[in-house]
Amino acid sequence: MLGLMQDQPLLISRFIDFAARHHGDVEMVSRRVEGDIHRYTYRDARRRSQQLAKAIDAEGLTQSARVATLAWNGYRHFELYFGVSGSGRVVHTINPRLKPEQIAWITNDAADEIFCFDMTFLPLVKAIAAHCLTVRRWVALCEADALPADTGIPGLVSYEAWIGAQNSDYQWPEFDERLAAALCYTSGTTGDPKGVLYSHRSTTLHAYAGALPDATGLSSRDCTLPVVPMFHVNAWGVPYAAAMTGAKVVWPGPALDGKSVYELMESERVTCAAGVPTVWLALLNHLHAEGKRFSTLQRTSVGGSACPPAMIEAFHQLGVEVLHGWGMTEMSPLGTVCRLKGKQLALPWSEQLPILATQGRAVYGVDMKIVDPQGKELPWDGKSTGDLLVRGPWIVSHYFKHEREKLLLDGWFHTGDVASIDPDGFLQITDRSKDVIKSGGEWISSIEVENIAMAHPAVAMAACIAMPHEKWAERPLLVIVKKTGVEVGRDELLAFYEGKVAKWQIPDDVVFVDSIPLGATGKMQKNLLRERLRDHRLQA
Amino acid sequence: MLGLMQDQPLLISRFIDFAARHHGDVEMVSRRVEGDIHRYTYRDARRRSQQLAKAIDAEGLTQSARVATLAWNGYRHFELYFGVSGSGRVVHTINPRLKPEQIAWITNDAADEIFCFDMTFLPLVKAIAAHCLTVRRWVALCEADALPADTGIPGLVSYEAWIGAQNSDYQWPEFDERLAAALCYTSGTTGDPKGVLYSHRSTTLHAYAGALPDATGLSSRDCTLPVVPMFHVNAWGVPYAAAMTGAKVVWPGPALDGKSVYELMESERVTCAAGVPTVWLALLNHLHAEGKRFSTLQRTSVGGSACPPAMIEAFHQLGVEVLHGWGMTEMSPLGTVCRLKGKQLALPWSEQLPILATQGRAVYGVDMKIVDPQGKELPWDGKSTGDLLVRGPWIVSHYFKHEREKLLLDGWFHTGDVASIDPDGFLQITDRSKDVIKSGGEWISSIEVENIAMAHPAVAMAACIAMPHEKWAERPLLVIVKKTGVEVGRDELLAFYEGKVAKWQIPDDVVFVDSIPLGATGKMQKNLLRERLRDHRLQA
Repeated sequence: MLGLMQDQPLLISRFIDFAARHHGDVEMVSRRVEGDIHRYTYRDARRRSQQLAKAIDAEGLTQSARVATLAWNGYRHFELYFGVSGSGRVVHTINPRLKPEQIAWITNDAADEIFCFDMTFLPLVKAIAAHCLTVRRWVALCEADALPADTGIPGLVSYEAWIGAQNSDYQWPEFDERLAAALCYTSGTTGDPKGVLYSHRSTTLHAYAGALPDATGLSSRDCTLPVVPMFHVNAWGVPYAAAMTGAKVVWPGPALDGKSVYELMESERVTCAAGVPTVWLALLNHLHAEGKRFSTLQRTSVGGSACPPAMIEAFHQLGVEVLHGWGMTEMSPLGTVCRLKGKQLALPWSEQLPILATQGRAVYGVDMKIVDPQGKELPWDGKSTGDLLVRGPWIVSHYFKHEREKLLLDGWFHTGDVASIDPDGFLQITDRSKDVIKSGGEWISSIEVENIAMAHPAVAMAACIAMPHEKWAERPLLVIVKKTGVEVGRDELLAFYEGKVAKWQIPDDVVFVDSIPLGATGKMQKNLLRERLRDHRLQA
Repeated sequence: MLGLMQDQPLLISRFIDFAARHHGDVEMVSRRVEGDIHRYTYRDARRRSQQLAKAIDAEGLTQSARVATLAWNGYRHFELYFGVSGSGRVVHTINPRLKPEQIAWITNDAADEIFCFDMTFLPLVKAIAAHCLTVRRWVALCEADALPADTGIPGLVSYEAWIGAQNSDYQWPEFDERLAAALCYTSGTTGDPKGVLYSHRSTTLHAYAGALPDATGLSSRDCTLPVVPMFHVNAWGVPYAAAMTGAKVVWPGPALDGKSVYELMESERVTCAAGVPTVWLALLNHLHAEGKRFSTLQRTSVGGSACPPAMIEAFHQLGVEVLHGWGMTEMSPLGTVCRLKGKQLALPWSEQLPILATQGRAVYGVDMKIVDPQGKELPWDGKSTGDLLVRGPWIVSHYFKHEREKLLLDGWFHTGDVASIDPDGFLQITDRSKDVIKSGGEWISSIEVENIAMAHPAVAMAACIAMPHEKWAERPLLVIVKKTGVEVGRDELLAFYEGKVAKWQIPDDVVFVDSIPLGATGKMQKNLLRERLRDHRLQA
C-alpha cells in the first residue's frame, strides 16, 4: 500500500524558484573575468536562468542533451547550473586545467551540443573548436560588444546577446526526478577520463544532507565564498545548497590568490568558505605576511585532499573552524564532514584537534565500510585500515557510456581510498590505495607522513612516495618544497619525526624540489613524482 | 536519459541503522509510565526494534498492515516507530485524548491488527477491546510480570515478553520508498476523523528539511526533549530527525507539568525542546514561581497553535530562542519555522520580536501561496490576507480510504488557514478560516486579539470568537480564563487594546470562564465555545 503523499519530483529548478521567491533580494557577488565586481540578486538569477532555458529551447536541443561549460566561479556559471538542468538538459562542467586535447576528447565523448566558455579560455576554444564535432553553438560568457569579430569559431555568440533575445516568461518543465541533470568527468589519472552523471534526485538529496548542521550547516544567515571550482563536482554542491537556503554567495572568479580572496571575504562579510588545502595555504600565508585577521569568517570546508592538522591549528588561531571533509567526483561529492559530537565539546583543544584532523563522519545518506583484501568487513576500532566502500543515493552506479560495465560490488562503490574508522564513526583516510607504502609487510600512511612534514615551519609542501627497497619491498621517500627564504636540511627534517611516529615509519630520505606536480583538481600527482624520482637512491 | 546514481530507496529503517552505527553510545532517556527513569542507547533501540520487527513477522502480518499505538512519549514507542515501519507495516499512532468510542472507530477504520498501549490506558482498552473487530493481538507496553492476570482482553501479551521471544538477527526489508509508513488521524472537529498516510519517502524528506539550520537545526551536539506527543503527527518528526542526526533524546512520558519537564531539562542537559504553547505556559509559570532559570536550554520549537509574542519575550528573557512554527497533520506536519534572515540579525530586539512572532518561512520543499475567494494569488506584501494553500512531497494527496475523492485543487492543498505573507516570505496565520470574524465587511484576526490579551498579566488563557451582530454581521467576543489569585475586569481588559489595534477590532465584550475547552491535540475548541455562548448578549 502506497502512502498518500503528493508526488512532487525533486527537481533542480525548485532550488532557484525557492531562492527567488523566499530570498529574492539576497545578493550574489561575483568577481568577473573582466576584473570588476558584479552584483545582483537571486531574483535576477532566476530571471536570467529562465531566459537561458528559453535560449536553449530555441536551439532545438532534445531532453538530456549536454551543454558544456568551461568557466570560473561566477554568476553566469551559476545561471548555467539552473537554466540548463532546469530545462531538462545536462550541464557538463569541464575542468579548464585539463590539456586541450583532453577537453576536446571529453566534449566529443559527452556529445556536447552547446559549449559556453569564459573569455579567458578563448584561445583554448579556438584551438579545439574544429575538433569538437558535436558542438553546434559556441557561447562566450560576455557582453555582445566584448566578442572579437573574427574568432574563426563557427556560430559563436555572446551569452548576453544569446539570452538577451529571450524574455523570462518560462515555466520549468516537470519530469522524473531521476533524469540526468549534470555531468562531470573524473580527472582520469589512469586511462581515459570517465563521466559521472548526476540526477535531479541525487543533487537534491545531496543538498539537503550537505546543509545539515552536522555537515556545512549552511543557512540564510550565511554568506558563503566557494573557492572550490564550479567546473569540478559542482563546487561540492554549494550552488544548489546556497539557493536552497538563501545564503548570500560570493564568487571569486579566477582570482584565487590569498590577497584577492581575503579582500572579498572582508568586503562582503563572508561567514563560510570552501576549498582545497592549497588555496587555504595561500590565504593563510597572505594573512601571516600582512598580520591580518578575519572579521567575519566563522568556518571553512576543506577537502579535495587531506587537510594537514597544522592548517586546522592555524585557522583555529584565527578563530575559524575547519570543517574537514572527504568525497569524490563519484559521490556528488560529499561523503563525510568533520564536526565534533556532543560528548566531545568539552574536551580540551589538544584532544579535539586530532579528531578534527580526521575526515569526519558520514553525512546522512552515505553508508560506508572498510574491508580487507578478501572483502571481509573490518571493525570500526580506529586502528584497522582497509579499502573504503560506500553506497547511497548520490553515489555513482555506472560511469556515463559504461552502463553495461559492472561497477559496484554487491551495491557498494570501491573508492580506491584506504582508511580506518573509529568507534564514533570518524573516518581517517590513510592513503589512496595506489599510494600506500608497503614496508616489510606493514603499511605506512603517506598522508600521515606528509601531515607531520607540513607542521615544520620551513615546509611549504610535502609528498611522501614509495621507493622500491630490496629488504623491505618499499620504503618512504619524502619530497619537500621549502618555503621561500627558509632553510632546512635532510637530517633536521627526519629528526622532526622522532617521537611522532614509530621508527620504521620515518622516511628513509628527503628530496628537495622546486615544485610538486598538481593535477587538474589540485591533487598531488604522485604517479608523476614516482616516475620522476625513479632513479633516486635512498641514502643508507 | 536517467542519471547514473545508485537507486537507494529512502527508508525509515535507515534512520535507526545510522543512529546505531554512528551514534551507538548516545543515550535515550525516558520517564516511564511506571514513574522511574529509563536509560539506554541508540544501539539498544535498534536491537529491540529488530526484535519487535521479528515479533510482528511472527504474527503473520502482511505488508502495510496497521499496528496501532496508544502511548506516551518513551523508548518503547520509539521502537514501535522503527520496528513497525522498518518491517514494512504501518505504525498507526492514536491520540488517547480522543473519546473511547472515537478510538474504537478509528481502530476499525484503520483495520489495525496489532494494538500496543501503555498501562495507563488499560482501563480504556478494556472498555473498547470488544469493539475493535480487526485487532488480533493486544500488547501492553510493560514487563511480563506487570501484566494483570484477568484483563478480559483476548490474546493480551506484555511487550517485553512479546519481543523478548525474538532475537535481533534481522535484516530490514528493502521496498519502494513510496510505501506507507505511518498513519495519523486528524482530530476531526467536523465529521469523522480522517487518516493521513505518510510514506517512507515523505518522512525522510521531512526529516532532512526539518533538521536544516533554517528549521530546527538539530545536530549530534543536541539533547532534545520533545513534549509534543508521539501520538500526534509523529511528534513533529523529531524521532526520525533525532535518529538521523544522533541527537540525544529525552522522553517526558506522561509527566508534562512544569516541574517535571523542568527537572528533566536540567538533569539531562537538554539543549532544545518542542511543544504546544499550553505546555510552555505551564513550564514558564513554574520557573517564575520558583525563580529558576535554564542552565542548558538554547531553543524550543513552538507550534500546534499560535505562540503569543508574550511567550517569545518570556523565553527570550530566560535566554531561550523560540522557533515558532506552523504545520498540520496533513503536512507531516512541518510547513514553516521562524528563523531570522541574515539581514535581520543586526536589528534591535524590539524589531526582531514582531518577526519572530510570525509563523516564519517555508522549509525547503514546501511551496505556499495565499489566494482570494476566487482563487487568485495574492501578493506577499504582509498586508493581503487570504486562504493559505500548500504543496510539497510531504503534504497529503488524499485521505486514507478516501483515495477517490479529489482533495487537491490544481495540485494545492487547502489548509483551512487564513494568512498573510510578507515580502521576505514570513507567514502570519491570522485565523482558521472558520474562526475568522467578519465585521462590517472587514476581517478581524481572532489570533491577533488573543495574543494581545495574553500579554496582560492577569490573563491565563484567551479565546476570541465571533458573535452574531445585527448591524456588523459579526463582532468579536473575548473569552478569558484569569490567572489564579489575580483580578481583572471587563473594562480594564478592553482598555488594554487601545493603541494596539484599530478601534473597530477591539472586542465588544468579555466573558470570564473557568476553562476553555481544548481538543485532543491541545487546540482551543472555538466551535464548542461559540455553542456554549450562543445566548450571550453583547453589552452596548
